[in-house]
Amino acid sequence: MPAAFKTVALIGKYRSPDIKKPLLTLADFLKQRGVGIVLDELTGEHVSTQEYPIMQLEKIGKRADLAIVLGGDGTMLNIARAFAPFDVPLVGVNLGRLGFLTDISISSLHETLGAILDGKYVTEERMLLSAVVYSENDRVFSTLAFNDVAVTKGVKGSMIEIEVHIDGQFVYTLRSDGLIVCTPTGSTAYALSAGGPILHPALRLIALVPICPHALSNRPVVIGGDAVIEIRMRQALEARVHCDSHSSFDLNDEDMVRIKRYPNTIRLLHPEGHNYYHMLRQKLHWSETL
Amino acid sequence: MPAAFKTVALIGKYRSPDIKKPLLTLADFLKQRGVGIVLDELTGEHVSTQEYPIMQLEKIGKRADLAIVLGGDGTMLNIARAFAPFDVPLVGVNLGRLGFLTDISISSLHETLGAILDGKYVTEERMLLSAVVYSENDRVFSTLAFNDVAVTKGVKGSMIEIEVHIDGQFVYTLRSDGLIVCTPTGSTAYALSAGGPILHPALRLIALVPICPHALSNRPVVIGGDAVIEIRMRQALEARVHCDSHSSFDLNDEDMVRIKRYPNTIRLLHPEGHNYYHMLRQKLHWSETL
Amino acid sequence: MPAAFKTVALIGKYRSPDIKKPLLTLADFLKQRGVGIVLDELTGEHVSTQEYPIMQLEKIGKRADLAIVLGGDGTMLNIARAFAPFDVPLVGVNLGRLGFLTDISISSLHETLGAILDGKYVTEERMLLSAVVYSENDRVFSTLAFNDVAVTKGVKGSMIEIEVHIDGQFVYTLRSDGLIVCTPTGSTAYALSAGGPILHPALRLIALVPICPHALSNRPVVIGGDAVIEIRMRQALEARVHCDSHSSFDLNDEDMVRIKRYPNTIRLLHPEGHNYYHMLRQKLHWSETL
Amino acid sequence: MPAAFKTVALIGKYRSPDIKKPLLTLADFLKQRGVGIVLDELTGEHVSTQEYPIMQLEKIGKRADLAIVLGGDGTMLNIARAFAPFDVPLVGVNLGRLGFLTDISISSLHETLGAILDGKYVTEERMLLSAVVYSENDRVFSTLAFNDVAVTKGVKGSMIEIEVHIDGQFVYTLRSDGLIVCTPTGSTAYALSAGGPILHPALRLIALVPICPHALSNRPVVIGGDAVIEIRMRQALEARVHCDSHSSFDLNDEDMVRIKRYPNTIRLLHPEGHNYYHMLRQKLHWSETL
Repeated sequence: MPAAFKTVALIGKYRSPDIKKPLLTLADFLKQRGVGIVLDELTGEHVSTQEYPIMQLEKIGKRADLAIVLGGDGTMLNIARAFAPFDVPLVGVNLGRLGFLTDISISSLHETLGAILDGKYVTEERMLLSAVVYSENDRVFSTLAFNDVAVTKGVKGSMIEIEVHIDGQFVYTLRSDGLIVCTPTGSTAYALSAGGPILHPALRLIALVPICPHALSNRPVVIGGDAVIEIRMRQALEARVHCDSHSSFDLNDEDMVRIKRYPNTIRLLHPEGHNYYHMLRQKLHWSETL
Repeated sequence: MPAAFKTVALIGKYRSPDIKKPLLTLADFLKQRGVGIVLDELTGEHVSTQEYPIMQLEKIGKRADLAIVLGGDGTMLNIARAFAPFDVPLVGVNLGRLGFLTDISISSLHETLGAILDGKYVTEERMLLSAVVYSENDRVFSTLAFNDVAVTKGVKGSMIEIEVHIDGQFVYTLRSDGLIVCTPTGSTAYALSAGGPILHPALRLIALVPICPHALSNRPVVIGGDAVIEIRMRQALEARVHCDSHSSFDLNDEDMVRIKRYPNTIRLLHPEGHNYYHMLRQKLHWSETL
Repeated sequence: MPAAFKTVALIGKYRSPDIKKPLLTLADFLKQRGVGIVLDELTGEHVSTQEYPIMQLEKIGKRADLAIVLGGDGTMLNIARAFAPFDVPLVGVNLGRLGFLTDISISSLHETLGAILDGKYVTEERMLLSAVVYSENDRVFSTLAFNDVAVTKGVKGSMIEIEVHIDGQFVYTLRSDGLIVCTPTGSTAYALSAGGPILHPALRLIALVPICPHALSNRPVVIGGDAVIEIRMRQALEARVHCDSHSSFDLNDEDMVRIKRYPNTIRLLHPEGHNYYHMLRQKLHWSETL
Repeated sequence: MPAAFKTVALIGKYRSPDIKKPLLTLADFLKQRGVGIVLDELTGEHVSTQEYPIMQLEKIGKRADLAIVLGGDGTMLNIARAFAPFDVPLVGVNLGRLGFLTDISISSLHETLGAILDGKYVTEERMLLSAVVYSENDRVFSTLAFNDVAVTKGVKGSMIEIEVHIDGQFVYTLRSDGLIVCTPTGSTAYALSAGGPILHPALRLIALVPICPHALSNRPVVIGGDAVIEIRMRQALEARVHCDSHSSFDLNDEDMVRIKRYPNTIRLLHPEGHNYYHMLRQKLHWSETL
């Protein structure tokens, strides 16, 4: 018997005032189901209603039993990172084309959500990464990533040279445009474009996917989710570390980026009968042939 | 404190009479260490000595505490499959260039083996796959694979069409030259040539790597080691299933290949300080750049 | 001023009796335009009419001013090879989804063909390959290819080893599933699935695309259309040479396949305004993004 | 009968004072052969001799009959661009490991050069690209490239969106890390790391190689050397155009980069018996297998 969702947070796409109407309709539907509703500050601004309490994300993280995200995969990434320290399950609703993370369509929203509120859902736990940058042993930057941590060349355009260690073992010196370290969630994002494999999202794995490696024999490597990865900048040449294409930090020669699994996971709730491969087929046009 | 290796099997490369000298030298070394030695039948033929008892592989599997394989990766694959039902750890010695599985060089053999006999080693457990072919619900073929199970097009040269299910969920209909289903051990073999990722050998994972897929968006998929994969032949066109490039079986339209993890694992013993990435660098020339 | 098309051959898809109706409608349209019509023998069988003369393909090749193919890309490949020695331009009409070679839709057929008969068309010349197999200096097989000549492993499933020379210069020893030698026309067929580049069809080029090469640094190579390529079988292991996935021939150790440009070209007629990239976008879903 | 090389320019690697000794030894050798020697300004600084006249590169371009470059491929790229407007053949000498462009080893230098001075050489013509950036119809940047013109994302790390036209025909809208437009010479440089094909250097071709394209079906496209390529920035997001990883220019939304073949070619002189594939094998380790 699943826990009841007494307090539900509604989170709309950032800078999208047109979220107002579907969001208020959804709020109305939930209210009739007897659910308490809270909004985050940014969503509150767009919706401009006094009907529902508005809270900071951190407070929502502590109080809400469920967060429903109306937006695209980008919004889900942001919210997943924000709620990572807490234990709020997420439901992703897409207003346009379905995303990898936002698998509920607006058209069947009330029916699907109603079932989820009735306890008819499947839970999927997904891992996150934490990345810390050290410069001369000082911790100079630290962030979370739901998709990936990518160390890439900078505006100079020259290949960078990095040294990669896993669990203290030297792996390789890589000359390339960069290296993507991704979660299973991120394996269908940037890493896929760079030639990485698709990792089933339920797995605890990390993939290392080189970007345009100089050595043609260099290939993606998949390691266990509890591995600690250290990337030392040999020739940084204005390199940067990017997390989820969201936050970034400039790197210098001899800086070190340490990446490991963040202790908490994100729980995604899906409608019963959810099929990951169905979504892959749709997104990657696998049903289509030349 | 590791169990003592009282009875050690020596297994030489198939059809390689020149294995005789290094094998007898090794036997002599082990004898002086007080270890009991047995030979398998094929090796016994090459070595033609009455000094050591000769046994069938199955009997060796039941009695030996350790098997030392002198050969290449191909010999290791064969022995791993043969000993899969038993619990005999393997040590791989390469007479030529080091292999992915045969990581002990003949030049430092006695020193390295001496240390292993003294209990100075690391153990690595590796998974195997079992594959069963069903034709009209009859079980018509069954085999083990340490590297991979590949369903490939036949001599006709036309693409085959297969339908893939994982744990009962439909994944895709694939038109291609074939599909490789590999273990982490097999990820550096055929699957790597087909564009698959390298999977760390300690993981329990299975990769599905399409061979020349017609749909350009088709990519390798990595799933959990306990998944059950079913491949249904839609247009077999003289297709075949190959296991470790060793045994094979002709497939017809509507035949089904079911692949899952074999319950036992293979234990490989490595010298202390063994580093998987060191071996990758050597085999894949990662230290080299253009 | 284009030459008038006095005699037009109509060629229907092989083993497709349902071609009868659209084909007779087309014949009627052409007849009203004052064009003389001939049918090839296979098409004649399906259509079973006495109204139009039926001829062998060779005779059509000598007499017709234009051939209109109703079918798919496979039919076009067959007819292109058959008419290669002659000088009959081809128009490809697709009854289903447009193909790379059959770019005229049945829905706008009369309008488009009417314009072509009026001289409003663009001509595209496309190269073919000829392949000859030598066994102990005897010429044992010879054929044409419009798409590609592929030397591939056989039913045994083991990698083959071949030695490649271009214009008498040694290129490499290749251990792989095979090697595809393709024309620009064939660059969007099998070679594309194997990782080859798209070559603009107006170019006189040949691409060598390895299939699952053992050496990870092996990449597709593009050479001039007048190069002579020799492939010597080192370890044939039941290898075969396939031309356009149509004809094939078994190869033995030490056999040699010599591939070069066939002296004639195929002329394809397209409606004015034809855009190769438009067709690529449609066929490869380039307009679509994740 | 080749023209005599009366005046030969010696050009040393930039910022490499250790070039002095081998350069003066070479100058001495040439002097004894009765050849007139000139040095460029930068080389003159390193060598600090009054024995040979020092000239600006442009003057050398007009006067010299041959330029011998002592350095690596980077030096050759720079000199090729500088001499592009003139008609001075180049010889590349590598002080370390042979390069794609510097194929004469220092160890056999005098023998090889002696033969070239005697007229025993083969000439290879190689194409260059010119790139012009237009911003609101103003020509804001213009440069040459011997390897490639790459439009890439900037420090922001987000994918850029560009629209590509070839000869006035729309090709595709590309969302990616960038697009490499390369010559055959450049096909073994950055483009190769991004998955592009190897183009034989004697061909007049241009390859378009996408960098981590979002659409998985996007593939390298090879077009004729006389094509005009226009890249319009839809979402530039701090994008840049890089030429030979040498010069670069910041791009804004709606800027346009026009790329076409530079009218002159570069002539490289090679020793008789020069084999391009031999060099490929060496550089790409094709002789090596796993």
